[in-house]
Amino acid sequence: MNTTDITLSPEHLLERLAWRYATKQFDRERKIDGPTWHALEEALRLSPSGGGLQPWKFVVVADPAVRERLVPASYGQTQVRDASHLVVFTVKTAFGEADVDAHVQKTATVRGIPAGSLAGFRHMLVGGIVNAKDPATRLGWAARQSYLALGTLLTGAALLGVDAAPMEGFDPARYDAILGLKEKGLTSTVICALGYRMDTDPYAALPKVRFDHDDVFLHV
Amino acid sequence: MNTTDITLSPEHLLERLAWRYATKQFDRERKIDGPTWHALEEALRLSPSGGGLQPWKFVVVADPAVRERLVPASYGQTQVRDASHLVVFTVKTAFGEADVDAHVQKTATVRGIPAGSLAGFRHMLVGGIVNAKDPATRLGWAARQSYLALGTLLTGAALLGVDAAPMEGFDPARYDAILGLKEKGLTSTVICALGYRMDTDPYAALPKVRFDHDDVFLHV
Repeated sequence: MNTTDITLSPEHLLERLAWRYATKQFDRERKIDGPTWHALEEALRLSPSGGGLQPWKFVVVADPAVRERLVPASYGQTQVRDASHLVVFTVKTAFGEADVDAHVQKTATVRGIPAGSLAGFRHMLVGGIVNAKDPATRLGWAARQSYLALGTLLTGAALLGVDAAPMEGFDPARYDAILGLKEKGLTSTVICALGYRMDTDPYAALPKVRFDHDDVFLHV
Repeated sequence: MNTTDITLSPEHLLERLAWRYATKQFDRERKIDGPTWHALEEALRLSPSGGGLQPWKFVVVADPAVRERLVPASYGQTQVRDASHLVVFTVKTAFGEADVDAHVQKTATVRGIPAGSLAGFRHMLVGGIVNAKDPATRLGWAARQSYLALGTLLTGAALLGVDAAPMEGFDPARYDAILGLKEKGLTSTVICALGYRMDTDPYAALPKVRFDHDDVFLHV
């Protein structure tokens, strides 16, 4: 595939990454349109994950009454209510062999091959992800994958000109209860509000705070 | 800022995300040029993180002898040796108050305000990230942030037309030893090889395997 005319310039990418910030005040009147939101859901769905195993579900909360109930479970942070869209990242609490089998079966279907021909692939995944890790470690592994998907979403949103607020300041147990996640075998790991900034958000104009290059890179 | 002419279309973003795949065979002769690599390092540096705390260092391994030594610590996966660039994501093993203070001080410097005026911000970060978590939980938190940065890098690379192979199949303890990370208070969490695919990589032509939309989304 000739990619020369569809790749971004380095400057273009950096302009987009400099534009984004953790939005504090969202415009309640401005909604993300259908095609743009579809692309952001697709960015999540297409996100890489360890072994390709996608140990997640993305909960998109649109119901205003539920959004209102989530505010007190988020230390009062109003982005949860005011943003156009809210994504609650969740992972499977008991990721196991059946989940590996689902991925192996999907791989066989997509590639038009017998699932049996993927026995080595299955063995590697069950050994490395399921059997080699105790449940707590496996849950930690799954949670890390959800942050990878969050990174995909945040970068994708910046490229589309959509503002976002990734948030760890919420009570996962209360979220799980309000959203009925436990009975679905899921638990929330991180959340992200998306929409459009208010012109009055004082944080929009603040310079981005990052450590200097030499403080975060080692070259060997 | 008028973003209408610098944002991507939804279709453009999805084309780039569909283009990427976990590269198995890298072209050993083809190197990422300076401006492109600089942008990818900047994408890492600018990545969001919990509390903005950036509990990481990114180790870029260029030395061919070190790259060769890392292959057996990576279950023989040759992308570690063959790709143009290799990034080892590491996090601070004893993230604590001093690290919060470094971020608070940097914030004060960048924004031209006294560090003392950020006492509430500091208190929130120390309480929420340092004191509220035991060391293992805090390390897990830091590791999740590094996966967020990995997501930023992978999406950025796809946009620039750079191939990448994120990899969990390596021995962190051996990496830490080979790279001298322990004595720097760091530990490796995940690695990513970057460069350009070989035309002969059979994985390049395989259709992407992802669960169906309804299997990974819940709408509330």
